[in-house]
Amino acid sequence: MGKDKGPTFNLKTPKGTKDWAGSDALLRDRIFTTISNVFKRHGGTALDTPVFELREILAGKYGEDSKLIYDLKDQGGEICSLRYDLTVPFARWLAMNTDVRNIKRYHIAKVYRRDQPAINKGRMREFYQCDFDIAGTFDAMVPDAEILRIVSEVFEELGWGGRYTIKLNHRKILDGVFAVCGVPEDKLRPISSAVDKLDKMPWADVRKEMVEQKSLDPEVADRIEKYVMNKGSRELLDSLLKDEALNANASAKAGLEEMALMMDYLEAFGVLDKISFDMSLARGLDYYTGVIYEVVTEGSAGVQADAPEAQKAEKSGKKGKSKQLSEDDDRSNDPTLGVGSVAAGGRYDNLVSMFQPKAQIPCVGISFGVDRIFSITKARIEREQKSDALRSSEVDAYVMAFGGKGFNGMLKERMEICQKLWSAGIKAEFSYKLKPKLPQQFKAAEQGAIPFGIILGEEELAAGKCRIKEMGLPDGHPEKEGVEVEISSLVPELQTRLAKKQQGGVSSLAQQLQGTSV
Amino acid sequence: MGKDKGPTFNLKTPKGTKDWAGSDALLRDRIFTTISNVFKRHGGTALDTPVFELREILAGKYGEDSKLIYDLKDQGGEICSLRYDLTVPFARWLAMNTDVRNIKRYHIAKVYRRDQPAINKGRMREFYQCDFDIAGTFDAMVPDAEILRIVSEVFEELGWGGRYTIKLNHRKILDGVFAVCGVPEDKLRPISSAVDKLDKMPWADVRKEMVEQKSLDPEVADRIEKYVMNKGSRELLDSLLKDEALNANASAKAGLEEMALMMDYLEAFGVLDKISFDMSLARGLDYYTGVIYEVVTEGSAGVQADAPEAQKAEKSGKKGKSKQLSEDDDRSNDPTLGVGSVAAGGRYDNLVSMFQPKAQIPCVGISFGVDRIFSITKARIEREQKSDALRSSEVDAYVMAFGGKGFNGMLKERMEICQKLWSAGIKAEFSYKLKPKLPQQFKAAEQGAIPFGIILGEEELAAGKCRIKEMGLPDGHPEKEGVEVEISSLVPELQTRLAKKQQGGVSSLAQQLQGTSV
Repeated sequence: MGKDKGPTFNLKTPKGTKDWAGSDALLRDRIFTTISNVFKRHGGTALDTPVFELREILAGKYGEDSKLIYDLKDQGGEICSLRYDLTVPFARWLAMNTDVRNIKRYHIAKVYRRDQPAINKGRMREFYQCDFDIAGTFDAMVPDAEILRIVSEVFEELGWGGRYTIKLNHRKILDGVFAVCGVPEDKLRPISSAVDKLDKMPWADVRKEMVEQKSLDPEVADRIEKYVMNKGSRELLDSLLKDEALNANASAKAGLEEMALMMDYLEAFGVLDKISFDMSLARGLDYYTGVIYEVVTEGSAGVQADAPEAQKAEKSGKKGKSKQLSEDDDRSNDPTLGVGSVAAGGRYDNLVSMFQPKAQIPCVGISFGVDRIFSITKARIEREQKSDALRSSEVDAYVMAFGGKGFNGMLKERMEICQKLWSAGIKAEFSYKLKPKLPQQFKAAEQGAIPFGIILGEEELAAGKCRIKEMGLPDGHPEKEGVEVEISSLVPELQTRLAKKQQGGVSSLAQQLQGTSV
Repeated sequence: MGKDKGPTFNLKTPKGTKDWAGSDALLRDRIFTTISNVFKRHGGTALDTPVFELREILAGKYGEDSKLIYDLKDQGGEICSLRYDLTVPFARWLAMNTDVRNIKRYHIAKVYRRDQPAINKGRMREFYQCDFDIAGTFDAMVPDAEILRIVSEVFEELGWGGRYTIKLNHRKILDGVFAVCGVPEDKLRPISSAVDKLDKMPWADVRKEMVEQKSLDPEVADRIEKYVMNKGSRELLDSLLKDEALNANASAKAGLEEMALMMDYLEAFGVLDKISFDMSLARGLDYYTGVIYEVVTEGSAGVQADAPEAQKAEKSGKKGKSKQLSEDDDRSNDPTLGVGSVAAGGRYDNLVSMFQPKAQIPCVGISFGVDRIFSITKARIEREQKSDALRSSEVDAYVMAFGGKGFNGMLKERMEICQKLWSAGIKAEFSYKLKPKLPQQFKAAEQGAIPFGIILGEEELAAGKCRIKEMGLPDGHPEKEGVEVEISSLVPELQTRLAKKQQGGVSSLAQQLQGTSV
């Protein structure tokens, strides 16, 4: 360490980055834990790749967005860049490890993009991605269906039950629809990307873009409308399976058959009721080859458009966005996420062979937009004033002492009690002062939203006792002043109370958020 | 995504970096979880800072080692560098957030050093640090003692009980000793750094360095020997408290008084028996101002030197290193860690004021060397052949089916069973094949070291039943062929068996490693 040269520098984090601290850091951490527990439940294994890759690994993978890649300075040696997503490093790993022919891998880590940051819109230059992918050659649609089961478990356990929809489509169906409607080969991608905008624009505007900007025959556009405006479930699939034109197209037929399998499996997994077969879902990235999906939550543009009022608003050209999401639904940070969506993915069978032409490893995966999930979760908690969920630590008990004149502070006694609690796995704190005042200690416990105080008094201690006080009980509650217990039974007594308190709803995010409105 | 351009590039990670996958990733993850659970138990809150900082923040903090900092390329805008440790970003955060006057923060994250990598010695350019620090003005030694309690909880829960020692010293004692022995002011740092080598060199060599290289009066060196070769506990402290020369020195006196307090508190915390008051411990970094400590484990150089045979070997000039640690005890990646140590830290009261002269926030902290802890833990597991601990996932049950001629594979039935298990929080997998063969399914379960198979047969299923089979039971075991259960009670039946199995020793790292020898 050098000598103090004085603060001649800016005390700040680099543009587009931020520190995560306190209750935000803890809440985000709990979201990560919730998600990774689901990943592990499905046999996911962790993969951790370096934060930077050889520049040539990333080259040619992101098209125009390659200009957003952060490069490391050439300080001699290899030329490297910070990773832009977690998918390319995963494909690079699969291509390198030729003995691995199938894997379920998850990766929760930061990625880097030199985009114009818009912090109030949640667009950062350093942000987390949270990916689960299944690689390997299997029977059709089986891993694909498990991915959507994983999606539903994640959102159920985040406490979003009943407030999210998984939009599902299939690239082969979409390609078939466009072919059947008469879209020329060279217009397939532009028309597909116009259709993908239906989650934020009314059909009239999309049609205008197709016809005026992309010179599509208006009759072709009208035929497309009859297909892509459809949303539904099995009944939509059944009607498409009876559509003679579609069934005459090999791509559409294959897609519809896979979709039928997918729905069977989703039913077996108990998630079919979360699915909206949405023929307008096209997804931006070129590399998808099969099913594609996007998760939207109530209030985000995509779902709201499903409601008749919102569709009316859209048709009349009004923006159907809800206020509470306006902060970050404007433009996704992550090109794998559509507007207003909180998770997205699909099947990509040809990515690994970009690195290793001999290695054809089909993949299907999902990426959760953790920053957006965090913002929505936090907003919900704040609206519901579930302040327990916004603590900055998870401490169970604050050990305190008081006494009359000549009180010595009982520091060692407080330490010994803490030691007992820690040894039993109970999260505990105490004042670092020799002689703290009782109100100071209560204040510390209250500020930390710590549920229990353990109070040592001289007389009680001499009798081998102390007091467990549940914080925040209303006046007149029989235990308002706490309950006296033998120190020898403090641990089980406190554990019983903690378990009871947790059943009351402070343990999991789902418990905290279940039943809160969006 | 661009088109396949063929593999014109190297399929590798950058020099000094590696991918973490499979059982290594899972074991490391479990070490992180163990450590962060202890941090949380002590009221620690997470702080996550960006992976890069403005370059001027890092400037002047690392002396000569500044040349090892990774710089980002100047792509317009701010000039940034990858973080070199987690301490400087923490100090920067404290200096920025002037409303925070005290905090217990932890941070587990990667840091970056353009050092010459020595992968077989565990020295990487990208590696994890795992830090806990307590910042704030408190009564003397109280947070310091809690840090060492945290150290002991971490190693107990990693299963190292009885096989680690916390070496403890105090900068003020050391400074006082040098002054009392007659070390000239300008030789204090060089002599201190010579003393610090006593964990890997015999006294004769250290003395030679002092006298020959650093021109210390030989009589001064001999006086130093009488102090710094001492190791002990309270009895050593008591004898020093009676040392008139030391007590006449203000620095030594203050240090000894603080050490007496520290020992009282360590006793109250139940960790005094883990402590070795080691007067030769000096620690490399300049910024420590109070207590300093380093954790060594059996077999690492520091502890072995305590054993008489090792001391003999040292005196005769032989290297007293054990074979199993030779891989990574050669030179620590992390300058905060001494040779052979697995965690280290101390009190540093003046770092924050380097950023904000007005902010004088005393700090005390610990950094765990996760890579080294990982290597030692893995070596132990391999030696003990506790293969359960080296799985790449933690799946509880593999759901399989079999049947005779015309068997349809029961895919949906397997899916429905998995759904039941997942919904109950049980980790489960199944084959992604429509009609998998029974031996293939058993093989998959065995390869994943999955403890239970759930077997569906046509007749049993028709009767609403299935079979729970514990894998790997010896021939002749009454449950070798599995136990038939009602599907309606599959979940509780399996949960009971899983709980029993976990009590048998596969749940926590501590349970897995308790009782294994180093």
